[in-house]
Amino acid sequence: MPELRKDPVVGRWVIIATERARRPGIFFAQQNNAFDDSQPCQFCDNRDPEIYSAKSRDGKWKVRVVQSGTPLLTMQEKFTRRAHGLYDVVNDYGVHEVVIETPEHTANMADLSQEQIRLVLETYAVRYNALEKNPNFQYVIAYKNYGWAAGSRRIGHSRSQIIATSVIPFSVKEKLAGVKRYFDYRERCLYCDMIEQEMDAKIRIIAESDNFLAITPFAPRFIFEIWILPKQHHCDFAKGVVGREEELAGVLKTVLLKLKMGLENPAYNYVIHSAPFRHGAVGSKWRTLPEDYHWHIEVMPRLTRVAGFEKGSGFYISSIPPESAAEFLREVRVDHG
Amino acid sequence: MPELRKDPVVGRWVIIATERARRPGIFFAQQNNAFDDSQPCQFCDNRDPEIYSAKSRDGKWKVRVVQSGTPLLTMQEKFTRRAHGLYDVVNDYGVHEVVIETPEHTANMADLSQEQIRLVLETYAVRYNALEKNPNFQYVIAYKNYGWAAGSRRIGHSRSQIIATSVIPFSVKEKLAGVKRYFDYRERCLYCDMIEQEMDAKIRIIAESDNFLAITPFAPRFIFEIWILPKQHHCDFAKGVVGREEELAGVLKTVLLKLKMGLENPAYNYVIHSAPFRHGAVGSKWRTLPEDYHWHIEVMPRLTRVAGFEKGSGFYISSIPPESAAEFLREVRVDHG
Repeated sequence: MPELRKDPVVGRWVIIATERARRPGIFFAQQNNAFDDSQPCQFCDNRDPEIYSAKSRDGKWKVRVVQSGTPLLTMQEKFTRRAHGLYDVVNDYGVHEVVIETPEHTANMADLSQEQIRLVLETYAVRYNALEKNPNFQYVIAYKNYGWAAGSRRIGHSRSQIIATSVIPFSVKEKLAGVKRYFDYRERCLYCDMIEQEMDAKIRIIAESDNFLAITPFAPRFIFEIWILPKQHHCDFAKGVVGREEELAGVLKTVLLKLKMGLENPAYNYVIHSAPFRHGAVGSKWRTLPEDYHWHIEVMPRLTRVAGFEKGSGFYISSIPPESAAEFLREVRVDHG
Repeated sequence: MPELRKDPVVGRWVIIATERARRPGIFFAQQNNAFDDSQPCQFCDNRDPEIYSAKSRDGKWKVRVVQSGTPLLTMQEKFTRRAHGLYDVVNDYGVHEVVIETPEHTANMADLSQEQIRLVLETYAVRYNALEKNPNFQYVIAYKNYGWAAGSRRIGHSRSQIIATSVIPFSVKEKLAGVKRYFDYRERCLYCDMIEQEMDAKIRIIAESDNFLAITPFAPRFIFEIWILPKQHHCDFAKGVVGREEELAGVLKTVLLKLKMGLENPAYNYVIHSAPFRHGAVGSKWRTLPEDYHWHIEVMPRLTRVAGFEKGSGFYISSIPPESAAEFLREVRVDHG
C-alpha cells in the first residue's frame, strides 16, 4: 500500500507511491518516453465517473471533476496513523481528483476564456467546501502542472489537480509558522503588510485589479515566480474568493498570458495556498486562527534547472532580480480577446 | 550589486545575482546553449590565483582551490545588514571557491581514486577551518553539481564548490530546529537514534564501514536519494572527519560508483551538512551546541522532474520506495580498482 512518511528531522510529509513502484529499468523507459500524445486524449471525451461538474444551460459540462486515473491517495481504508520506531507513518487516506478545465482540447489555461477560468476557480471552491466536510482531512491543495518540465506527462488538454490529505504539507506549516511569528510581534498580518509595501513600491507589480495584486516576490526561489495576492485579508481560498471569482480569473489569465507571450510558452506550476481546515481534525496541532494565514496563489515558471543544490541547501539563486522580471512582464502586452 | 534577501514569511535567504542579470533574450540563448565543451577546459591547466592546494611530493598540485570565475559572493565590501521596509537584506559579503578535484580531465568523481577523493575531503576540511576564522561567516557549505540536470554548465572536469556566507541557509535552520526539538524531548541526538534504527532494520542500507553508514532516507525527497552518516556523533564536518577521511572517501566512492553503474551515470548533487560556526557571529541567534547537529552528506541523483508542485507544496512524491532503491543499489557491484 502507498503511504505517507514524515521526515523525522524537519517534519516534511512525503508520499511514497508504492503502487507506482517500478524496477529502475521500467522507470528509465518511462522517463525517456516523454510526451506520448499518440493515444486519443483521455480528457476530450471523458467517461470517468463524475464527481462534480459545472454545466452550461443546455446541460453540457464546461468543467468536470473526476478521480485521478493514477491516484496518489485513495479512501480504500480508514485513516490510520502509526509509529515505526522513531518514524511516523500515515496510510494513503485521501482524495486525488483531476479538474478537466475545458471540453475543448486546449493545452494552456492561458488560452481559455476568462469565463471558463472563472468556472475552474468556482469548481475548486466547490471541491474545497465539499472536502472540508470530512473531519479527517486537514488540508486541500489545488495545483496545476503545465508542460514537461513542470511534471506533466501529457500536454494536450488543460487540467489541474486537487489533493485532500490527512496531514498538512510542509510548506504550509512553514508559512503558518512565519505568519504567526509576525502576528505575535506586530499584531498584523504579514501578507497584508507586504501588500501595502508592494503597492507603495510598485516595482514588483505585474498586474493589479480592485481586489488582487500580482507581484514577483522580493526573495523569489524561481526566476519569474509570481504571487497573486487578494488585497483583503482572508485565510481561506474557498471562502475568501466568493464573489470575486471573475476578477481573479481575469488576473490569472493576464499572468498566464504574459508568461506565454513573454517567455515562449514555458512550463509552469501553480499552487493555491489556503489555511488548513479549522474543524479540529484528529491529531492536528494546527489550530489555525483567521489571522494566521492569508490565502494566495503562487505561479512558478519552470525555466531554469535550479536543482539539487538549492533543494539541498535551501539557498536559492535568482539570476534575474524580481524587479527586472516584473518590469519585463509588465511590458508584455496581452489581449484577453 | 548582488545581494542576499530574506523571504519574510519562512525566513529563507535567496541570492539575487544581479551581476549575472540578463535580459530574457540573452537568458534563453544561454539556457539553450547546453554544454559548451568546444572551448579548452579551464580547469586542466588552471592559472587562476591559488587559494590552497594539496600537492604531491614532487610539488605538483593534486587538488586545487581557486576563486569561482563567476562568484555569487565576494568580499569587495564590508558585511552589511539592512532593512528594506519589512524585508531584510544583506550584501554579497562571502566567498565562492571552486575545488578542482584532479589535474586529470576526469568528469565524474566516481572515477577518481579513493586516495584522490581523500585529498578532496581533506581540502574541504582545510577550507572550513580557514574560513571559520572570519567572525562574519556563519556558515560554509561544500557541494557538487555533476551533470546538466544538476545545474552544471560543463561536465568535463570533476570539481566542487565552497560557499561561505554571513547567513545560515534555510535548510540548515530547519534541520537545526528539528534536531533541537528532538533533543529537548529525548535528550539524545535524532541522527544518532536514526542510525541505530537503520542499522537494526538494515533494509535501507546501501554501504557501511566501521564509522560510516550510507542509507536511503525513510522519507526521501528524491528517488535514490542517499545520506552518508558518520556513526559517531559530531556536529562539525571539518572536526568530525579528522582521521577518517580515507574511510569516508571509500564510502563516497562506493556510493557514487553505484549511482554511475546502476543508474546510467545520472546527474547528481551532493551537499555537506555541518553545524553553523559557533563563534557568536554578528547577528546570529543560532548559538548551536555540539548536541544540536550531526554532520552528514546528502547525495541527490537528479533523475526525475520533481518540479514546481513539490517545491510549491513541500509535498514530495517518491515513485520508488527507499527500501527498493536501497536493495537495487546494494546489488550493484562496484570495483574500486
